[in-house]
Amino acid sequence: MSTEKCFAKGSAAPGPVPNGYIRLYSMRFCPFAQRTRLVLSAKGIKHDTININLKDKPDWYLERNPLGLVPTLETPAGEVIYESPITCDYLDEVYPEKKLLPSSPFGKAQQKMMLELFSKIIPYFYKIPMEKRNGQDVSGLEAELKEKLSQLNDDLVNKKTKFFGGDSITMIDYMMWPWFERLEAYGLKHCLDSTPELKKWTERMLDDAAVKATMHSVDNHKAFYKTYVEGKPNYDYGL
Amino acid sequence: MSTEKCFAKGSAAPGPVPNGYIRLYSMRFCPFAQRTRLVLSAKGIKHDTININLKDKPDWYLERNPLGLVPTLETPAGEVIYESPITCDYLDEVYPEKKLLPSSPFGKAQQKMMLELFSKIIPYFYKIPMEKRNGQDVSGLEAELKEKLSQLNDDLVNKKTKFFGGDSITMIDYMMWPWFERLEAYGLKHCLDSTPELKKWTERMLDDAAVKATMHSVDNHKAFYKTYVEGKPNYDYGL
Repeated sequence: MSTEKCFAKGSAAPGPVPNGYIRLYSMRFCPFAQRTRLVLSAKGIKHDTININLKDKPDWYLERNPLGLVPTLETPAGEVIYESPITCDYLDEVYPEKKLLPSSPFGKAQQKMMLELFSKIIPYFYKIPMEKRNGQDVSGLEAELKEKLSQLNDDLVNKKTKFFGGDSITMIDYMMWPWFERLEAYGLKHCLDSTPELKKWTERMLDDAAVKATMHSVDNHKAFYKTYVEGKPNYDYGL
Repeated sequence: MSTEKCFAKGSAAPGPVPNGYIRLYSMRFCPFAQRTRLVLSAKGIKHDTININLKDKPDWYLERNPLGLVPTLETPAGEVIYESPITCDYLDEVYPEKKLLPSSPFGKAQQKMMLELFSKIIPYFYKIPMEKRNGQDVSGLEAELKEKLSQLNDDLVNKKTKFFGGDSITMIDYMMWPWFERLEAYGLKHCLDSTPELKKWTERMLDDAAVKATMHSVDNHKAFYKTYVEGKPNYDYGL
């Protein structure tokens, strides 16, 4: 994991991407960037990491990615790739060792459909803690989230597999993992109580080397999250 | 183009997908389904089409695609694929004749990034006409849309190519086209006045055989659109 402090506005731009490497622009606590970090780690891809201060972005970063978001990849040839699923598919195609996407077109389509469904769950992980902080009643939203998680649970039950793409980890597992790693920090761990297969999946994921290599402790997530909701995110927390 | 009237709730389910064919579940005026129709047409893929009454969906359709949306593909083996970009990528991969996506991983990533940017433009095509009907001032929204269209225009100017992926049509052109075909029906044709290269692109698109094969006349779009905004979409308009 990168232990470099983040680059803010006014910082000097990093040098060129070394040959044989790929560069990841990241933020240490960003779940979307963690998708790319998981793929880089799982496939053993040589890379360097530049962490970005997302509240105070360097101009040189906005020149590379006008959206200013992470993750972004940069190659030694100066090619720039962003949007987390696009970066992950790119890495899986360019680095053929340990393929994470299925080789069959239908297998790929299935993973993309699952990802699309999962992307509709992500907003709950932000909305529920926010409304709770505002003192609102979140029981309705929590019931909706539980219903969606129970669909994921059913999917595992029906497939009778250990992971979402079979008995070993594939791309879709890494695409969903970062939000499950943060469930306790979001105050949503109890939402897994009625989805035992999904809970077992989270336990299996915790055994994976790439998950171990990219994860933060619950305490660190909580500490970062506190600074984030207070509007003063400490991107370098723990360094 | 399919001239079959749409299937509604209570209709008998269609028979199995014939061998050697793929089936498209569609709605004749749906821009998302038109993406898939463009790809099927451009690649000359043998298919049958079942049009769905989206206001009154058959149960057998919801069993195939629980989201109930179009486009959906079904293979003779019973595999079901939905979400328009996923259906198009699937077709491009399974039917290798006349590839629409670039073969290089970076070329593919570029098209996906463009598609992601374009997907942020789509809501304007619905919001502006709706607010206009409600008597609201849409000048701010129109200015935002024009700004986004001028970015597409700049992209063509910078690339110096006839289409968005080079001098011949590729996937990204088909992914964006359906909304430009409907610009006049949306009452937004004037938004192209200050983007001459983008306007030329729309003219070039109109010469394409797949565009010709899948398009509706402006009058038909307007007539369908009128029934749609009145809350009684006539999916079979013109049949």
